[in-house]
Amino acid sequence: MAKDKKLVEAITSMEEDFAQWYTDVVKKADLIDYTSVKGCMVIKPAGYAIWENIQHELDQRFKETGVENVYLPMFIPESLLQKEKDHVEGFAPEVAWVTHGGLEPLAERLCVRPTSETLFCDFYSKEIHSHRDLPKVYNQWCSVVRWEKTTRPFLRSREFLWQEGHTAHATAEEAEARTVQMLNLYASFCEDVLAIPVIKGQKTDKEKFAGAEATYTIESLMHDGKALQSGTSHNFGDGFAKAFGIQYADKDNKLQYVHQTSWGMTTRMIGAIIMVHGDNSGLVLPPRIAPVQVCVIPIQQKKEGVLDKAAEVYTALKNAGIRVKLDDTDKSPGWKFSEQEMRGIPLRVELGPKDIENNQAVLVRRDTREKVVVSLDEVASEAAKLLEVIQSDMFNRAKAHRDSHTYEASTYEEFKKIVDEKPGFVKAPWCGNQECEDKIKEETSATSRCIPFEGGETDSVCVCCGKPAKKMVYWGKAY
Amino acid sequence: MAKDKKLVEAITSMEEDFAQWYTDVVKKADLIDYTSVKGCMVIKPAGYAIWENIQHELDQRFKETGVENVYLPMFIPESLLQKEKDHVEGFAPEVAWVTHGGLEPLAERLCVRPTSETLFCDFYSKEIHSHRDLPKVYNQWCSVVRWEKTTRPFLRSREFLWQEGHTAHATAEEAEARTVQMLNLYASFCEDVLAIPVIKGQKTDKEKFAGAEATYTIESLMHDGKALQSGTSHNFGDGFAKAFGIQYADKDNKLQYVHQTSWGMTTRMIGAIIMVHGDNSGLVLPPRIAPVQVCVIPIQQKKEGVLDKAAEVYTALKNAGIRVKLDDTDKSPGWKFSEQEMRGIPLRVELGPKDIENNQAVLVRRDTREKVVVSLDEVASEAAKLLEVIQSDMFNRAKAHRDSHTYEASTYEEFKKIVDEKPGFVKAPWCGNQECEDKIKEETSATSRCIPFEGGETDSVCVCCGKPAKKMVYWGKAY
Repeated sequence: MAKDKKLVEAITSMEEDFAQWYTDVVKKADLIDYTSVKGCMVIKPAGYAIWENIQHELDQRFKETGVENVYLPMFIPESLLQKEKDHVEGFAPEVAWVTHGGLEPLAERLCVRPTSETLFCDFYSKEIHSHRDLPKVYNQWCSVVRWEKTTRPFLRSREFLWQEGHTAHATAEEAEARTVQMLNLYASFCEDVLAIPVIKGQKTDKEKFAGAEATYTIESLMHDGKALQSGTSHNFGDGFAKAFGIQYADKDNKLQYVHQTSWGMTTRMIGAIIMVHGDNSGLVLPPRIAPVQVCVIPIQQKKEGVLDKAAEVYTALKNAGIRVKLDDTDKSPGWKFSEQEMRGIPLRVELGPKDIENNQAVLVRRDTREKVVVSLDEVASEAAKLLEVIQSDMFNRAKAHRDSHTYEASTYEEFKKIVDEKPGFVKAPWCGNQECEDKIKEETSATSRCIPFEGGETDSVCVCCGKPAKKMVYWGKAY
Repeated sequence: MAKDKKLVEAITSMEEDFAQWYTDVVKKADLIDYTSVKGCMVIKPAGYAIWENIQHELDQRFKETGVENVYLPMFIPESLLQKEKDHVEGFAPEVAWVTHGGLEPLAERLCVRPTSETLFCDFYSKEIHSHRDLPKVYNQWCSVVRWEKTTRPFLRSREFLWQEGHTAHATAEEAEARTVQMLNLYASFCEDVLAIPVIKGQKTDKEKFAGAEATYTIESLMHDGKALQSGTSHNFGDGFAKAFGIQYADKDNKLQYVHQTSWGMTTRMIGAIIMVHGDNSGLVLPPRIAPVQVCVIPIQQKKEGVLDKAAEVYTALKNAGIRVKLDDTDKSPGWKFSEQEMRGIPLRVELGPKDIENNQAVLVRRDTREKVVVSLDEVASEAAKLLEVIQSDMFNRAKAHRDSHTYEASTYEEFKKIVDEKPGFVKAPWCGNQECEDKIKEETSATSRCIPFEGGETDSVCVCCGKPAKKMVYWGKAY
């Protein structure tokens, strides 16, 4: 049983080595495997099931706002990628190039999409003629490729899965409203489903998307105090429309350029779930995203009646709409507990002969390990209630952690000391000048995360140069 | 309204030019658009929604049989592709090659997956050690690339969407059982959901998948009498396992090779739906796969009360679980009818002031154009019943067409005459020798579609060479 032994080995503690802890959890919770293709991973069933739930939740929310799904090619001809200058500069250095189809060299090389703005623009330039054709609110679920030098499972890989929404609107106001709407959708998805609190704000010009007029972002804070950009929504204005000639005849039959947006969320969010909620026993999944919410583990299962009763409990939970698994394998209960904890299943039900005698079961929370004894008649309703409590407790703990790791700095000395000694967000005013932003990054390796929508105003002075500040900025070291 | 005019233009009739009719329907039903990347298409909302329904239906059926979803990289290193000799010979001539990542040439070129046997084998060789690790029953939903010379939307494109299942088992019997199970699953999906009758059978050695021991297939017949391979399930035996060294320790701790299968279904099925059910007014979608099942079209909608009543009907249908759309745009009813017919929505509800006066609505079937007047109190229940009737009538019509276009030939003269004059399947005995198969293909352009599971035995002589026949074979010209 060499394999079993390997799984129960302690994972590296996060206090000792957070990066190694992350890698251990990703592997031992059976989320991914490495492959022969450097920087690309296999997403295994336990990992992919989380992604399927993310897809399901997001897709439903998208469709409620009128989004329609489409599928565009994975290849972009080089000439098409080059049409918008900022965009090509941003992406060309990190794309994979296809140069041969079968045995023949291609007349023009194709890149594997790193993102699909150029393809959508090409498509829209043929689809959009009249104001009646607007708005277009399309999205696709697909994989994209960015030839990163340093990779980490979920956080940064050469190929990753995502959705990318691309919209075209008659007016700048409509495009702006859609950009904000999708950012808000991402924020409430993160908070309500993933139990991850986020800061909503705007990226600085330096950090915005290649080709965008404005990039909005949600930023979350990992357990180690590093920030993670968790979803972005871009307003392109009419820049791409002009580069690609996407025009429509308005009601007065005048030609106008469309205004566009794009927005995306990726498998990176699985990394965020791990790093916000995980602990030294492994993964901790928020109930609303957990592929399995409750694991029923029989104790002394060979004794008469135990497995029958466990199956009854399983059925009661299932009928209550809970995603439940019964672990009736011949492993020991202790082994099953470790496995359930490693995999982050939010709640377990322990059920042995003595429990059955007393018509009870023991519910054990994954997040706090708290045990609650409940009557067998109420196991489904109690489990359902407890899952809701776990979900909201997980959010509140993550928020408390985020808030207690958010600092303010008004002088550069203070700023550097915080960045150096206290992992977390630093709120500090900024003059709006990229030189200060560059200097801060170079000297502290903290980057501007965002200008928050709430509390972005300031009448203070720039933390770096001391000149009057334009905006309050969240800074931090980031993944 | 130049654009409106364009849409109502008659499509080419299928009797006149079936290929052009197909292209017209694909475009005018708004399923796809062409792109700047030759041989790759945009799948538009109306097309992608059909694929989403196919995915949903198949995925549910897969999971009921224990399938788990995963995601593997889109790239295959050249050395990995070459490990199984038949496989690489089959696929290498038609793959796209990535040679550069960012600005650097790659040390080893990567192909974009044409199928993922080699990646799954590489993965399984690391995952499988003990009999306790078996079976593995994994599937992925993804896109694949085959550098075809001649392409047609859905039927043959350089990139297409599909699912590919890949399984590993302890014994040959288990692998065979899974191969058959998945073929049966595909067959019942096609018949029950897509209303497309299929012939289940085995491919000849010439036509089987590169690297497989046996390929099972479902073959369907299009309206023009051409065959379409609609889903395949392959039994690899232990051939790939030996090439990739996938071994497990059995209960006696002896090393054994695993036995593997793979099976796939693609966006090609959207082409099948069009070519089996479509007519000269456009697409006809089977209700169970139709993204919109019922379209409510108000007549004289500016008259007081019409739109209110139409909205009531819409709500009643929606509450009955029917996928319904209310077309209250300012287009004329005639235009709306054409559009609903072009897009293949199975049922429309016409509702005008006179209908409302009489507390009735008119239901019009897309497949037969039959009109039924129903009481407004029963519109939802009547529509639901009618959708079921349409579904089964569509299957029966397709089956009657298939049966009436299936011929038998016992001499080669007869065979050639049928292939020449009567589009459809030809059942004819075969000696089992590839020379005859090659000769038939060369001289008639009919290929062996399959040796049917039912009625594959024969004591007759080969239709080509006159020697004793081994099997009865379905032959036909195919897409």
